[in-house]
Amino acid sequence: MKPMNIGLLGVGTVGGGTHAVLLRNRDEIARRAGREIVVRVAAARDLDKARRVVGPEIELTHDPFMVVRHPEIEIVAELIGGTDLARELVLAAIADGKHVVTANKALLAIHGNEIFRAAQERGVSVAFEAAVAGGIPIIKALREGLTANQIEWAAGIINGTTNYILSEMRDKGATFDAVLNEAQRLGYAEADPTFDIKGVDAAHKLTIIAALAFGIPIQLAKVHIEGIADLAQVDICNAEEFGYRIKLLGITKRVAAGIELRVHPALIPHRRLIANVEGAMNAILVKGDAAGPTMYYGAGAGAEPTASAVIADLVDVTRMHTADPDHRVPHFAFRPDRLSDVPVLPMGEVHSCYYLRMPVVDRPGVLADITRILADRKISVEAMLQREPAEGQEQVDIIFLTHMTQEKDINAAIERIEALPMTSGSVTRIRIESLDGK
Amino acid sequence: MKPMNIGLLGVGTVGGGTHAVLLRNRDEIARRAGREIVVRVAAARDLDKARRVVGPEIELTHDPFMVVRHPEIEIVAELIGGTDLARELVLAAIADGKHVVTANKALLAIHGNEIFRAAQERGVSVAFEAAVAGGIPIIKALREGLTANQIEWAAGIINGTTNYILSEMRDKGATFDAVLNEAQRLGYAEADPTFDIKGVDAAHKLTIIAALAFGIPIQLAKVHIEGIADLAQVDICNAEEFGYRIKLLGITKRVAAGIELRVHPALIPHRRLIANVEGAMNAILVKGDAAGPTMYYGAGAGAEPTASAVIADLVDVTRMHTADPDHRVPHFAFRPDRLSDVPVLPMGEVHSCYYLRMPVVDRPGVLADITRILADRKISVEAMLQREPAEGQEQVDIIFLTHMTQEKDINAAIERIEALPMTSGSVTRIRIESLDGK
Repeated sequence: MKPMNIGLLGVGTVGGGTHAVLLRNRDEIARRAGREIVVRVAAARDLDKARRVVGPEIELTHDPFMVVRHPEIEIVAELIGGTDLARELVLAAIADGKHVVTANKALLAIHGNEIFRAAQERGVSVAFEAAVAGGIPIIKALREGLTANQIEWAAGIINGTTNYILSEMRDKGATFDAVLNEAQRLGYAEADPTFDIKGVDAAHKLTIIAALAFGIPIQLAKVHIEGIADLAQVDICNAEEFGYRIKLLGITKRVAAGIELRVHPALIPHRRLIANVEGAMNAILVKGDAAGPTMYYGAGAGAEPTASAVIADLVDVTRMHTADPDHRVPHFAFRPDRLSDVPVLPMGEVHSCYYLRMPVVDRPGVLADITRILADRKISVEAMLQREPAEGQEQVDIIFLTHMTQEKDINAAIERIEALPMTSGSVTRIRIESLDGK
Repeated sequence: MKPMNIGLLGVGTVGGGTHAVLLRNRDEIARRAGREIVVRVAAARDLDKARRVVGPEIELTHDPFMVVRHPEIEIVAELIGGTDLARELVLAAIADGKHVVTANKALLAIHGNEIFRAAQERGVSVAFEAAVAGGIPIIKALREGLTANQIEWAAGIINGTTNYILSEMRDKGATFDAVLNEAQRLGYAEADPTFDIKGVDAAHKLTIIAALAFGIPIQLAKVHIEGIADLAQVDICNAEEFGYRIKLLGITKRVAAGIELRVHPALIPHRRLIANVEGAMNAILVKGDAAGPTMYYGAGAGAEPTASAVIADLVDVTRMHTADPDHRVPHFAFRPDRLSDVPVLPMGEVHSCYYLRMPVVDRPGVLADITRILADRKISVEAMLQREPAEGQEQVDIIFLTHMTQEKDINAAIERIEALPMTSGSVTRIRIESLDGK
C-alpha cells in the first residue's frame, strides 16, 4: 500500500520530534499501521533551521496554507501552537476535507467546540492525544478504555512545570521564587512561565478531560483556576506533618447538582500513588463506577513523548481515514447528538475539606473566637495544630483541617476570622482531596 | 439503530458483573457506542442462579453452543474460564462468523496463536482487554496508545493475589503461610492458589503483553516462571534496609540477542512509583523509546473492573463490526504478516543485578572465599551486609547486592559457594530490577 502523506505545520520541538520518531521507527510503525507514514511537506518560519531538522527529502515552505491545501496530503499535523493562526489553519484543513492531528491544548480549550463541529459536518477526524499529558495515552483511555463507566471524577497532575517546582520546594525546602529561577535556568520552566504557574495550561487540559469524561462541551471560562505562585514553604511543611503532599491538580467531578471544574493546589494523602508523582512527570487518576480508580502516568511534555502521542493519532487516523465516519470513535467520546448540558457548578457550591492556616496574636480567647465562627457555619474540625510562638514573638500560626464543607461557608468563615482583632494577616486556605477511589 | 445483541458464556463473577454494568450504564454506553448493547442470551450451568443474576428478560440455556450459533447474536462474550471447552466454543463462534470478547488469559496463553489465526482467516475480531490486568486498559495502551514506539521493556504487577500477600508480609511482618491463610479467609486468594502464587497466572498475562509489545507469537512454554512461595520474611526486611521493595513482576524486555520473558520476585527501588503499588492492585510500567516510561494502574480483578474491560471491547467491536477488517487494529498490534520471529532468550542468558543471601558459619576466611568465587566469575559487588551473629549462634547471613551480571554466572557462583564447607544452607537469590525508565 502506498505511504500515508502527512503535512507538518511547525518544525519546532514537537514537529522535529515527530519527524525524528517517524523516521527512526518507520518500519515498526508500518508493521502496525499496515502502511508507511511519511512527512511529505512541512511549513516553518526558519527554512534553513527546518532543513537541518528534517533532512533533504521533505518539501519545505513558509506558507502553512500551502500545506493545508496540498493535494497529496491526507492528514495535517498542527504543531505550531498559538490560537489564532492555528485556528484558521485547522478550519481550512477541515474545509479541504483533511484529517487533523493537533497537540494544541490552548486551541482546543478556546476554539474546540467550533473545530469539532466543523470536523463533524465535514466528516473528518480531529485527533488530539498529544494535547493532554504528552506521551500518556489518556485521551484514548478516557474515550475508549473506560466506555463502560460512568466517570465519577478525574484528578490530574497535568502540568509538569508546576509539579517540578512543588517537588523541589518540598525536597530542598526552597521558596517558590528560588525554585522557579532554577527551573528556568534548567529549561523546565519557560522564560514567561505565567500560563504554567497560574494554572491556565492545566485548565486548558482539564476542559478537554472533562469533555471526554462527561460528554459536555468545552467550557474554559467556567473553570475555577488558582496557581501555585502564592504557595508558602511553611504550608508544604505543615502538610507533610499531617501526612499530605501538596500538588497542583486539575479536578473534574460529577455531583448531583452539576459538574465541578477546578484547577488549584491541593493536599493529597501521601500514601496515595498520585501524591508520589514527582518532578516534571504527569499522572491522571480517573474514577469510574465499574473500573474503580485507574491511573495513567508518564512524561507530560518533551519532544519525543509528545511525538509519541501525535504519531499514535496519525496511525489511528491512517487506519480509519477511508472508513465510514460512523465507525470512528466520537471526538468527545459521546456521539455529538448525545452531548450533555449538565451545568458547571460555581466554585462556591463545591464541597471540599480544607487546610486553613491563620496567623494570630497569641492571646487568651483567640481559639474560642475562631472555633465559634467555624461552628456558626457548621464547619467541623478534623485536626488542629498550634505551636508555641517563637521566642519573643507574639504571633503564631493556628492550623485547622476541616471535614467536608461547602466552599461558600469556608469563605464566609474566613472573612469573619480575618476581621477578628487578633488575626494578624490573611488566612491561607488550601483544599484537601482524599482521592481515595471509593 | 437497533441494539447490538450479545451472547454471554458464563454468568459467574465476570458474566454477572458484565450484565449488571451493561444494564446500569445502558444509556451512558449507548451515548458513546451509538447504539444499545444488550445481553440477549446467556449460557450457565445453574439456570436458577443465573436467572436471579440476569433478571427475567434474558434467554437462558445450559447449552453454550446454542449461544455460539444463535442467529441473532453478533458478539459472543466468553466468560466461563478454563481452556478446553472455552477453546471449542471460541473456535465455533469464529467459524460461525461471530466476533468474540474474552477475559480468559489462560485460554489465550495456551491456544491464542490458533485462535487469532482462525479469527484472522474468518475476518472477525477476538478482543481481550479483560484478559490482562482487569479494569486497566493496558491492551489498548500497548496496541494503540504506544504505536509510535519501539517498546524496550514492560514490567508489571499483574497478579493481585501475590501483590496482596507481599504487601501484607511487609506491612505486618507475617510469614507467607500466615498471610496466605488470611487472604483465603478474606477471599483475596482462591482455595487452590497454586496458579497465583507459583506465578503461572502472571505468566499467562505476560505472554499476551509480550506479543503486543514486540509483535511476537504467544510463547507460554518459554516463560521463565518463579513464584513467591519460597520468599522469606527476612529477605523482605533486608530489601527494605537497602531501599527496595519486593514485588512479583512479569518482565519482558527486548535486548540485542532476543526477547526476555520472565516472572519472578524482584527487588525494586522503593522510590519508584510501581514499588508503591500495594494490596491487590495491578500496575504495568512500559518503556517506549519515544514516550519514555508510562505506567498504567488499577484493579486487576473483580467483577466490575473486569466487566469494564469486557464492555470496552464490546463497544469497540460494535463500532467496527461492519467495517472492513483492514480498518481494525491488528490482534497483536502488528499486522499478522509482519510478526517477528525474534527468539526468546533462555534464562541463563539474561542479565540482571542480584540480591544474594548466604547463610554461613562465622569463621575467618569465609568472606575471602566467597568474594574470590564472585571475582572469578567477574561478578562485581555493589553493596554488602554482614551482621553480628545472634548471641550463642555461629551462623550468620551475608548479603550481597551485585552489579549487572549474567544469570548463568550467578548460578555457577552460587553452586560453588554452596559447596564451601562454611556455607550452612542454600543461597537465596532474588533479582534486582531498577526500572528506571532511562
